[in-house]
Amino acid sequence: MAIELLITIDKKRETALSRQVYGQILQAIAGGCLKSGDRLPATRLLSKQLLVSRSVVLEAYEQLQAEGYLEMRKGAGTFVAATAAEAGTSSPPVSGDGCTVATKAPEFISFDPLSSAAAYDFRHGVPAWDVFPMDRWQRALNEACRRATPDMLTYGPAEGSFALRDEIARLVRSTRSIPALPEQIVITTGATQALDILSRLCLSKGDQVLVEDPTHHVLREIFSFSGGEIIPVPVDQEGICVRDIDRCLAAYSQGPERTPKLLYVTPSHQFPIGVTLSFNRRIQLLEWARRSNALIIEDDYDSEYRYVGQKASALAGLDTSGRVVYVGSFSKILFPALRIGYAILPPALVEPFLAVKMITDRMTAAIEQEALADFIRSGQYARHIGRMGKLYATRRACLVEALQREFGDRVHILGDEAGLHLLIELQTAADELALAAEALRYGARIYPASGYYIGSRPEYPTFILGYANLSEHQIRLGIGAVARAEQALSRN
Amino acid sequence: MAIELLITIDKKRETALSRQVYGQILQAIAGGCLKSGDRLPATRLLSKQLLVSRSVVLEAYEQLQAEGYLEMRKGAGTFVAATAAEAGTSSPPVSGDGCTVATKAPEFISFDPLSSAAAYDFRHGVPAWDVFPMDRWQRALNEACRRATPDMLTYGPAEGSFALRDEIARLVRSTRSIPALPEQIVITTGATQALDILSRLCLSKGDQVLVEDPTHHVLREIFSFSGGEIIPVPVDQEGICVRDIDRCLAAYSQGPERTPKLLYVTPSHQFPIGVTLSFNRRIQLLEWARRSNALIIEDDYDSEYRYVGQKASALAGLDTSGRVVYVGSFSKILFPALRIGYAILPPALVEPFLAVKMITDRMTAAIEQEALADFIRSGQYARHIGRMGKLYATRRACLVEALQREFGDRVHILGDEAGLHLLIELQTAADELALAAEALRYGARIYPASGYYIGSRPEYPTFILGYANLSEHQIRLGIGAVARAEQALSRN
Repeated sequence: MAIELLITIDKKRETALSRQVYGQILQAIAGGCLKSGDRLPATRLLSKQLLVSRSVVLEAYEQLQAEGYLEMRKGAGTFVAATAAEAGTSSPPVSGDGCTVATKAPEFISFDPLSSAAAYDFRHGVPAWDVFPMDRWQRALNEACRRATPDMLTYGPAEGSFALRDEIARLVRSTRSIPALPEQIVITTGATQALDILSRLCLSKGDQVLVEDPTHHVLREIFSFSGGEIIPVPVDQEGICVRDIDRCLAAYSQGPERTPKLLYVTPSHQFPIGVTLSFNRRIQLLEWARRSNALIIEDDYDSEYRYVGQKASALAGLDTSGRVVYVGSFSKILFPALRIGYAILPPALVEPFLAVKMITDRMTAAIEQEALADFIRSGQYARHIGRMGKLYATRRACLVEALQREFGDRVHILGDEAGLHLLIELQTAADELALAAEALRYGARIYPASGYYIGSRPEYPTFILGYANLSEHQIRLGIGAVARAEQALSRN
Repeated sequence: MAIELLITIDKKRETALSRQVYGQILQAIAGGCLKSGDRLPATRLLSKQLLVSRSVVLEAYEQLQAEGYLEMRKGAGTFVAATAAEAGTSSPPVSGDGCTVATKAPEFISFDPLSSAAAYDFRHGVPAWDVFPMDRWQRALNEACRRATPDMLTYGPAEGSFALRDEIARLVRSTRSIPALPEQIVITTGATQALDILSRLCLSKGDQVLVEDPTHHVLREIFSFSGGEIIPVPVDQEGICVRDIDRCLAAYSQGPERTPKLLYVTPSHQFPIGVTLSFNRRIQLLEWARRSNALIIEDDYDSEYRYVGQKASALAGLDTSGRVVYVGSFSKILFPALRIGYAILPPALVEPFLAVKMITDRMTAAIEQEALADFIRSGQYARHIGRMGKLYATRRACLVEALQREFGDRVHILGDEAGLHLLIELQTAADELALAAEALRYGARIYPASGYYIGSRPEYPTFILGYANLSEHQIRLGIGAVARAEQALSRN
């Protein structure tokens, strides 16, 4: 395909027309916009496009050819010469230093490692890829494409597909005891977006946000970027320590007394420790929210998989005063790159939330929403969770066994009752980061967890081990590698 | 499927176990979580789940049955009775009034009309649905699903698929004269998100944002929500009046003198007027941005379709000082519900932009990005634009003709040289909104445009007419309907 040259001819200017064409092609080459080997439009075509006589274009081309910028290949057309393109720069002419626009980007943002060359990668937050029924998902997508009406392809309601919201309402009613109506549900571009919208909606500069300590750094970044002041609250075996909230507020508050606006909590499988919020604490937390007029964000990630004990009803199911926003995601069940999550909102928050959603990205992609609704309705979703639950239970048991075999009493395992990861505290003289680095040399990637702690620090090196995406064989070899790495470090 | 009951048994409590089960089922019914006709789990199953003897569950079920809340259907199981569910409420127990969380939602947000029963809907901003090659798009989606690797399904780079960014770089280089590298491109969840991220990145409370007058209300909402102070700048036949900027700043500024941070402009097809920014103005605008250290946001929507005159090089292609962010979208070429847009950033802005993208929604859905890259690479995209350009040119000509036939000299048509809509000023005694309402009674939906003006007001009733999604027959009948409506109003 020939390059479409965007040349602007000004017939009122004194400069000869052919000189104008010449100058702009030269600029395009120098600017890197025309590259070596690019074919130029035929003179006949360009002259028609520019509404000038063909001789104007011919003259410009000939001049550039004479100067070595262009070359004519017989029967093929006119091309940018190899030497000319070398004279130009392949990088854009814009220099980064030239731009001095002040921005307010969060400075502390940390990017996740994207991929890893490790043979045994205990990455958390990802499901098992090899058993995902991609063919079934493809079928649902195809079905959605086939059924797509103009209404589905154009700008639809900001709250998302009714069919999907209806399925989610049914799902959370039967599995999470939340009596939600579809009208309270807003589809978001992943759960992250729901959290960000809530931050933008509820927080002004200096507003207090209570988070579990430890918690995911992304949460801190989201709340801080909207002006929130992070107040960490300790977590014990029963989950967030509700009785400590007032003490924490007093200890961390700066300036005049304020009332907290938000409390973020992961009741099903605390991140990263993995404990489940007890029933008593749930009741206490709801009472606290009522008393302090704060909003609870219940991030119910990992609620689908529980291996030991009973599933507990969601906070949102116990709430009777409209103080809980429930945030869910399909990332861990289907796949993260799907980017479909949702928020279940107290009725009074639906309209304000939608107003911010409109500004944020107008709506979440529609065809995938219809496909997901279909995937849930047809029973594929429930079957997939059932199958995965069994698989993950086996992998979890294998990991626990391997850890105990390799480390015996020196390993303290937390949060293995549910979810897709567990946390270990390892009694070792080795340094946490050094051990992770050494393990990688032995082929195993494990994830240091100390960075998630805010006000406290774990006594021993602490790691998050995701096990969903590793076979039993890989798990055993991987933990063996970690053990050898630890021995190697201890020997030095 | 039987409802999965989430009952929490506390064996330490004094309340009898069967009473605990009874109470929680009753609560589920009253709260609307269990509905009439819902099947309860079999007693054997529930007792196993709760780790209690079966008699505990049986006792609770029998009590509820005796009280009329449950009914046993022989051979089918235990169900919530019809009368019981009526006693419960079908709406959630949460009352909107209970929640008094203060939010900062934009108050002035206006929702677009979602659909219309009008026979002839001159809606703008939507492509022609009937000729979109859904089968080809479906094939691209299928191909992307088949090729999907774990890397593509998990949390990928926040900037989006390299394949797609590479195709976009090639595209804007050859059709928009922008010498961008893929590394400068970030995929966003629609162009809206790119604008919102730029606002969040660059604006603090009270910062000045220059916009064209008139402009789309969503823009004002996005910039205002991030604290921006909107300064309208008039638009004439050559586009935004660069020489008026300083006067506008002086006229609208409140408080101490500030320098503007952002200028938002739609150079290819000004929204809603439809003029194209002239070459001279482009150069002036870039000089102004350099002088005032401001960032230009170039929203290049509708740049693909031009019916008269030459395409002009994008501002971003003329910029040599890193002061232009180019925002593009695939909404008007493929379909809006796809939600894939992009920003081309000066190198210095890439990292800050990505940091906010991470917080906003982590990344845009991945499979669709791969499908789109494939769609472009295979030439489908260019072919589709070519086909549509011809179709839209015909529809545009038909609309212009129909307008002139019906209204003669009384209609002033603007911005029909490019894009998917034009603007008309109608010399009539009728009121703008009244005419739109009357036209709807005659079967035609036209879109009043006065609301887009900020500091000025058009002299006559002004309407936006989108023509992409109407056949020539519909266009003629639709404009006929508008004419009859206008006559009816004038007669009264």
